[in-house]
Amino acid sequence: MMLQESNRIGRIAMLFALADAGETLTTPPPNGWRYCTGKVGSMNSQKIVAAMETAAKSSHIIETDVYRETHALYHAIMEALYGVTRGQVQLGDVLRTVGLRFAIVRGNPYDRKQEGDWLAVALYGTIGAPVRGSEHEAIGLGINHI
Amino acid sequence: MMLQESNRIGRIAMLFALADAGETLTTPPPNGWRYCTGKVGSMNSQKIVAAMETAAKSSHIIETDVYRETHALYHAIMEALYGVTRGQVQLGDVLRTVGLRFAIVRGNPYDRKQEGDWLAVALYGTIGAPVRGSEHEAIGLGINHI
Amino acid sequence: MMLQESNRIGRIAMLFALADAGETLTTPPPNGWRYCTGKVGSMNSQKIVAAMETAAKSSHIIETDVYRETHALYHAIMEALYGVTRGQVQLGDVLRTVGLRFAIVRGNPYDRKQEGDWLAVALYGTIGAPVRGSEHEAIGLGINHI
Amino acid sequence: MMLQESNRIGRIAMLFALADAGETLTTPPPNGWRYCTGKVGSMNSQKIVAAMETAAKSSHIIETDVYRETHALYHAIMEALYGVTRGQVQLGDVLRTVGLRFAIVRGNPYDRKQEGDWLAVALYGTIGAPVRGSEHEAIGLGINHI
Amino acid sequence: MMLQESNRIGRIAMLFALADAGETLTTPPPNGWRYCTGKVGSMNSQKIVAAMETAAKSSHIIETDVYRETHALYHAIMEALYGVTRGQVQLGDVLRTVGLRFAIVRGNPYDRKQEGDWLAVALYGTIGAPVRGSEHEAIGLGINHI
Amino acid sequence: MMLQESNRIGRIAMLFALADAGETLTTPPPNGWRYCTGKVGSMNSQKIVAAMETAAKSSHIIETDVYRETHALYHAIMEALYGVTRGQVQLGDVLRTVGLRFAIVRGNPYDRKQEGDWLAVALYGTIGAPVRGSEHEAIGLGINHI
Repeated sequence: MMLQESNRIGRIAMLFALADAGETLTTPPPNGWRYCTGKVGSMNSQKIVAAMETAAKSSHIIETDVYRETHALYHAIMEALYGVTRGQVQLGDVLRTVGLRFAIVRGNPYDRKQEGDWLAVALYGTIGAPVRGSEHEAIGLGINHI
Repeated sequence: MMLQESNRIGRIAMLFALADAGETLTTPPPNGWRYCTGKVGSMNSQKIVAAMETAAKSSHIIETDVYRETHALYHAIMEALYGVTRGQVQLGDVLRTVGLRFAIVRGNPYDRKQEGDWLAVALYGTIGAPVRGSEHEAIGLGINHI
Repeated sequence: MMLQESNRIGRIAMLFALADAGETLTTPPPNGWRYCTGKVGSMNSQKIVAAMETAAKSSHIIETDVYRETHALYHAIMEALYGVTRGQVQLGDVLRTVGLRFAIVRGNPYDRKQEGDWLAVALYGTIGAPVRGSEHEAIGLGINHI
Repeated sequence: MMLQESNRIGRIAMLFALADAGETLTTPPPNGWRYCTGKVGSMNSQKIVAAMETAAKSSHIIETDVYRETHALYHAIMEALYGVTRGQVQLGDVLRTVGLRFAIVRGNPYDRKQEGDWLAVALYGTIGAPVRGSEHEAIGLGINHI
Repeated sequence: MMLQESNRIGRIAMLFALADAGETLTTPPPNGWRYCTGKVGSMNSQKIVAAMETAAKSSHIIETDVYRETHALYHAIMEALYGVTRGQVQLGDVLRTVGLRFAIVRGNPYDRKQEGDWLAVALYGTIGAPVRGSEHEAIGLGINHI
Repeated sequence: MMLQESNRIGRIAMLFALADAGETLTTPPPNGWRYCTGKVGSMNSQKIVAAMETAAKSSHIIETDVYRETHALYHAIMEALYGVTRGQVQLGDVLRTVGLRFAIVRGNPYDRKQEGDWLAVALYGTIGAPVRGSEHEAIGLGINHI
């Protein structure tokens, strides 16, 4: 059950999130993998979570009416938010706002079939005071089995 | 004090950490910026911190005998570890081990000189049980003024 | 000052919280102990705290106008919420909602009188997305001297 | 995908952990479910995690060589430890020791087959100073899809 | 780069925050240091952060349009709030309110010039239920290089 | 149950911890209050906790063989450590060491007798890298009913 060099799901998701408009990945995701990307900006952490859940469902990355898939995604999102917020998963409550690009990727990164599908949620963008320019970059990655 | 497109220090550090052996960045860091990369693997979080501090000092990214520089680096490292550990900055205590590539970059990402230098610490690798193959990817980024 | 087998206050509180409508405990709390049970559901963590404080006061488990008793209860509630939320004591902010049964028990679980009264706050219910069925169970227990 | 009254996996696991020697559950787990119970005491959180992983594997609740199963169990254990430690998943580092009974249960608590198996890890015991009698009860529950 | 006995910036800030109306410090801050004091009370952590940022800017302790200075202050404020809230940087969400005096001090506490300026943010006041008298004292200190 | 101006237990404890050798408090603690002060330095958080527990017991601030008193002190110590460590109650694990003066004070800070005794634990000192001079000040305060 080794991680496959070409199937590093977290790295692929992160490269998607880091890609600027018009950039493409030099190595695309493996055949059969599903993914989506999007943008969201808010002081409201609830909206950040909701935007990613909506994107994953409308892109058919997870099945809407299977709770285990929502559960897997939710925890991957929360883990990615730990990286972005670094300590307390809070934004507006502590006077911070974020502008983020996100990528959600689904596939099996391991060399054995029985490992099944995994999800990676990558976030890249800025965090800072709600004043233009008073911000620096932030990154987060969450990975979960599905 | 806008973030400069070509000077996104966190993105540059993350791309360094994601780069496989032999890969080069399509857009190198701006002239005059300093950076180093390295690898560290351990169940001992103390060793992870020490390895990065040593690398930053021996590469002259920070000045060894100026405490404010060590202080800036320390907090950037801790923030990057939040992303990797996602909740509790603990490894062996909760039976986890990591194998990480790191990149430390120093420069001014803003369009105004008075913003001075900033540090980015990027981590990419795996986290998991101390059993080969029982691991998934993890990422962290910490940014601080220096 | 050993914990008395029949006076395990946390276990008693938890069994109350786990009891379905109509179920009774096979071993009731010791004579002279005070307790109450109730239900609360919300995305708003403030409401969860307030519902338990109100129940404890109106059931005369704690004295309303003695701050040390409110203080003891507050910390027991917060500790129980750590078990339910597992990481960040947040609900709506991270798009979660809970439906909980709670039990609050007061008595001396130790074999020596001078240990005085202790409080146990037990929570049992579900946590999940604000969508019916998208939820799993959660449990928390907080214990404090009073 | 409603939680089934008779299949509340967290409640079943918690009742197992609360059961004293010789006690049996009034409602046993559904047919086909797998579970184990055990005891562990330590100041060393690493040992607590290891004891439960070993029990789950030797009881064939999870498959030893499938990483996604280990991963699911690990996160359920960590979530249960949040309830026990209430704030920082630390024991000896902050001069605490625990004596715990644990129960690990695997089955599908939902009314639809596609929800698949879930894991519940329940902990019940005492936490306190490393001095006999200087301790109170603690409880934790972690639930994860597998 | 030793801390100078007379320049202990955290101690000076804390003594300012502890000083009652009309009290003066027996040892004033070193020449050339800048500082301000103020009061803020709220259940809303956002307002606490904003009140201190506004005071620091209007007292010219930090430069309004230099982001690195805002960034240094923000992290010092957050660290001070950890001390006040002890676990989760939350107030109203967990039904708590605070009434705080704050002091913000800027200067170089070290014996070498190259250590440059540092910021100390000290908080002293009460935290408790939103009921008069149901509260106890709380203290926090954050220190950062600027 | 108002806090008495002259009985602010947290402020008194903090002033003790801030006092340099030979300094005395301008307003001493109320008659009948008990207190002790001491010093401890370590990378090992376990030793910090143990040093304060030992001092409180040997100074008869708490009764050694009454668990509720040990329990009250333990939580006050942990809360003070949150202020010192600001995020994760860890020292050596994240390559930090502390040198602290502590003060432990016991008395009733409220104007009504039934509020009984409370404990304040104040910490003042330095935290930093295990290199002389690479450190800044840190402060923590924990308060609990006893």
